Amino acid sequence: MNSNEALFNYTLRLGDTSLILAQRLSEWTGHGPFLEEDLALTNIALDILGRGKSLLEYAAQIEGKGRSADDLAFFRNEREYFNALIVEQSNGDYAKTMLRQAFIDCFDLLFYTELAKSKDSVLAGIAAKSVKEITYHKRHSFSWIKRFGNGTEESASRLQHAFDELWQFTGELFEMTETDTILIKENIAVDLATLKPMWEKEIQELLREAHINIPETTFMQKGSRQGLHTEYLGFILAEMQTLPRMHPTAKW
Amino acid sequence: MNSNEALFNYTLRLGDTSLILAQRLSEWTGHGPFLEEDLALTNIALDILGRGKSLLEYAAQIEGKGRSADDLAFFRNEREYFNALIVEQSNGDYAKTMLRQAFIDCFDLLFYTELAKSKDSVLAGIAAKSVKEITYHKRHSFSWIKRFGNGTEESASRLQHAFDELWQFTGELFEMTETDTILIKENIAVDLATLKPMWEKEIQELLREAHINIPETTFMQKGSRQGLHTEYLGFILAEMQTLPRMHPTAKW
Repeated sequence: MNSNEALFNYTLRLGDTSLILAQRLSEWTGHGPFLEEDLALTNIALDILGRGKSLLEYAAQIEGKGRSADDLAFFRNEREYFNALIVEQSNGDYAKTMLRQAFIDCFDLLFYTELAKSKDSVLAGIAAKSVKEITYHKRHSFSWIKRFGNGTEESASRLQHAFDELWQFTGELFEMTETDTILIKENIAVDLATLKPMWEKEIQELLREAHINIPETTFMQKGSRQGLHTEYLGFILAEMQTLPRMHPTAKW
Repeated sequence: MNSNEALFNYTLRLGDTSLILAQRLSEWTGHGPFLEEDLALTNIALDILGRGKSLLEYAAQIEGKGRSADDLAFFRNEREYFNALIVEQSNGDYAKTMLRQAFIDCFDLLFYTELAKSKDSVLAGIAAKSVKEITYHKRHSFSWIKRFGNGTEESASRLQHAFDELWQFTGELFEMTETDTILIKENIAVDLATLKPMWEKEIQELLREAHINIPETTFMQKGSRQGLHTEYLGFILAEMQTLPRMHPTAKW
């Protein structure tokens, strides 16, 4: 793999993760628990969709084969998607959606803060803009987790259930491949190993405040770095790609 | 009807129309024809949802019976909703969604520009903010109508079909009731009769550019001013109100 291929794979991975997460969050639009939350969550989904679009536009440019960001979004199949497994997991109830978001926001704030120092100026620029947005997203999701954990017995048990479903997908966030190794050498990519202890410390504190116990050892799911996904991604792509895959005039 | 009741009814009518339109538009989120359009349409839905929220908050305050904007949004049934019929019509294909939007954007820009001069400072304030947003929305929807009308045979026939479905719901936008009469006297409400010729002129020009013929006479649907709706509203409310109507802890 040459460094241009690595940069394409890396940017694609980040773009896919943002795009699929935005897709999941947007399923809540118009269905939030109350008006204020509906607005907040849709705004968050828009921030993340905007970031995904910028990343896929850059990926298309790096590839230089005439594919556009839309081609990458709408004309790749499941095995060609490299989003982290956690973002394709089902929304479930609001506790699960917010816990998934808290795990990701915590990771993304650490990650994009580092990526903003990347030698690649385009990635650094996208990252710098994202840091501002993620800071707000994280405040939002973290406050929800504390509310659930310290709310009713029902909300606390729902949060525990969400944790039991989602925790196994958090390890993969820190998995590195040849792509990362090549780009870390060039001071373009973030060394995920350095983020892990910081992420664990913050999440442990959050979960302690929410009275959630983290198991000593858990089997951690992997696969997305190789384009292997859970059963959910296929459905998300089917829904997302139906209209664009028709010839425009066939639908508009 | 005293003038406080009239102000409540009037604000509710405007809030309901914004809320239901935002709900309809948000159905496209994550399903737009391409990434850029998905972002644009979701932003437009958010502007309109934000306006609906502000209007319902004001309506709740005017009513002064301890109901919140969320109570008004989620705990009223179909017959208690006063949104214009056109906003509850189905999205259909993109041509129909954009034509519905063009009809409404054209009306809203004229309407909120006038309402910004209202003697009621809260309505005037909400209107002034909306004018900026609607100016962009209208540019967006009008440009789509011209694209459809001057695109392929397929897109033009889809636009004509959308017109045939939607035109009958445009007359109601200008219907006035005792509510309007009372508030026009107090320089609070907009005299819709004065807007009609301006709206017709702009829409006729747009449709001429898009090669759509406006029939000499059409039967115009009515009913929303009395809480009478098409079959669609019930489904929209069912979808929108399910989660909020459960006790929070029962879902979160």
